Amino acid sequence: MARLTAILGVFALSLAGCASTSGPAIPDDTGPLVISKQGSFFVGGRDIHSNDLSLLPAYAPSGTITVDQMYVRYQIPADAGKKKPVVFIHGCCLTGKTWEETPDGRMGWDELFVRRGRPTYVIDQTARGRSAADPSGIVRVKGERAAASALPQVFGAAQEGAWTIFRFGPEYPKVYPGMQFPLEAQAEFWKQMVPDWLNAQPTPNPTVPALSQLAQKLNGAVLVSHSQSGIYPFQTATLSTRGIAGIVSIEPGACPAPTSDMRPYAGLPILVLWGDYVELSPRWAPRLKLCREFVEAANRAGARAEMVMLNDVGFPGASHMLMQDRHSIAIGNWLAGWIERKVPQ
Amino acid sequence: MARLTAILGVFALSLAGCASTSGPAIPDDTGPLVISKQGSFFVGGRDIHSNDLSLLPAYAPSGTITVDQMYVRYQIPADAGKKKPVVFIHGCCLTGKTWEETPDGRMGWDELFVRRGRPTYVIDQTARGRSAADPSGIVRVKGERAAASALPQVFGAAQEGAWTIFRFGPEYPKVYPGMQFPLEAQAEFWKQMVPDWLNAQPTPNPTVPALSQLAQKLNGAVLVSHSQSGIYPFQTATLSTRGIAGIVSIEPGACPAPTSDMRPYAGLPILVLWGDYVELSPRWAPRLKLCREFVEAANRAGARAEMVMLNDVGFPGASHMLMQDRHSIAIGNWLAGWIERKVPQ
Repeated sequence: MARLTAILGVFALSLAGCASTSGPAIPDDTGPLVISKQGSFFVGGRDIHSNDLSLLPAYAPSGTITVDQMYVRYQIPADAGKKKPVVFIHGCCLTGKTWEETPDGRMGWDELFVRRGRPTYVIDQTARGRSAADPSGIVRVKGERAAASALPQVFGAAQEGAWTIFRFGPEYPKVYPGMQFPLEAQAEFWKQMVPDWLNAQPTPNPTVPALSQLAQKLNGAVLVSHSQSGIYPFQTATLSTRGIAGIVSIEPGACPAPTSDMRPYAGLPILVLWGDYVELSPRWAPRLKLCREFVEAANRAGARAEMVMLNDVGFPGASHMLMQDRHSIAIGNWLAGWIERKVPQ
Repeated sequence: MARLTAILGVFALSLAGCASTSGPAIPDDTGPLVISKQGSFFVGGRDIHSNDLSLLPAYAPSGTITVDQMYVRYQIPADAGKKKPVVFIHGCCLTGKTWEETPDGRMGWDELFVRRGRPTYVIDQTARGRSAADPSGIVRVKGERAAASALPQVFGAAQEGAWTIFRFGPEYPKVYPGMQFPLEAQAEFWKQMVPDWLNAQPTPNPTVPALSQLAQKLNGAVLVSHSQSGIYPFQTATLSTRGIAGIVSIEPGACPAPTSDMRPYAGLPILVLWGDYVELSPRWAPRLKLCREFVEAANRAGARAEMVMLNDVGFPGASHMLMQDRHSIAIGNWLAGWIERKVPQ
């Protein structure tokens, strides 16, 4: 089995090299990286006044805090040229860490795309990671100024349930044959998971207007979303198509309804990308079907949308966390090649 | 006033250049940066079982989550040589963002120290930022399986109160004369603040054993802490001195009591660093006094401890957020020079 995996890995890597039309595929083992500029900033945010910030004598109960801002970390390679930036948007119960070094210690897509000459921007969704949540609801209830029902709808994803959602196998701890997530490093992966405030957020999620603001600031960016955030780039395009150079939605929790307004997607390069075992999953199979219907509807309205199953392009065994799978670099090289072909500079 | 500030800034920068003993001071305006390796990982963490993870049908209420892990992002410069790494530890209500690009868009100390040839490791304290908190207490109370008093002691720092704590001025919105924090970018700074779970954590804070584990993994590191985390490197040394090459505590919320066991600090290079206006602050002046007593006690026990007021080495006007002040690069160059002189390679 290990041998088969190794063979498949080599096969995938060579295919990825073929698929790329500009520049060689980046190997796992790399030399020095030259950055022209890097840093981090916030997009969006609004000031609110709260009387429920603290029950501690050292910190005032009342005052102003800023919420709904989105943390963004970026790196611009020395040889960026005119290539459009990529914005990486993580999914449920995770943070921007999703796109960084993999649980088994390999390069993340954040660096891979920089090495492919593309500025990369990695965000933390609002109310997650380094993007602040509003503590007022918790403080108010603990201080007995509101009922328990006023608490934010926060949840944690149990590892046993996430195992199935991330399609490591049909149910914990069974593993799909040939599945490529590095399970030997799963303890490091579970540490990536954080409490999720999604359901405590207004609609649309404040991440969406922040993405629109970021795309416009960048004057053209490819929005790459994953899972829970899969629909965000489409929602962003509905707000405004300004600044959106392309959309890559990796295993989206939802695609736009095929009956919805398709005009925002006219002319836009769109990729909906899926890993393996999707048809075996009661959670994911219906989503795949709806996304296929969306892609067809979008193309009828003039979009340049594709749905790609990684199995069909030489990468079998991909889990839901495919940017961290053993063949993540090969998949990333393939995706970078797709963007280079489809998104005009 | 603007002219005086500009003059002071130039004065500080030139002094910083003089203070450094190895390598030139890094200017604000820099060229390409060459990284030999970068990435992120977690240190520490433990699995817990919870029956209060979710009230949502899509996510199971019961299962395993990992808590108390510490997120670490690192960059190793191409010319690192044998210089000891620096670990940057943020303070109250903030995350590792503290050390990244400043609110007014200048290089952070995370990059400055890499440019000085030193590997840098930036952490998020446990239960903060990208380091997961445990949502069980919130879910349990919202699900009416526990009383409101079981909620975690979470708080947010109001901007008006933080203004005084960070010593932008004696009280909001007054400004100390010559104070160097870039207040024109304060809106961007307030976005850095996140809810603080410190008081919902066990003692010692799980960040402390995680720092010990990190220092040992790095086989020698300088722990640079700030404010609320100011005491963490000392607590880490009390657990074990292994891997601790030096301690820099910037404006600590507390120093170890001078009557406590000083043996962990014997032979250790220690710097307790302070900005301006400290004696004017009822919150900070007593802490300064106690830290001075600690430094004297540590030195009697064989430590190589110093307390430095930035005013005395040519950097007046430093706020509590001195790593983001207008003269942050000059101060960072001075600090890098101190480490180069005091910490053996």
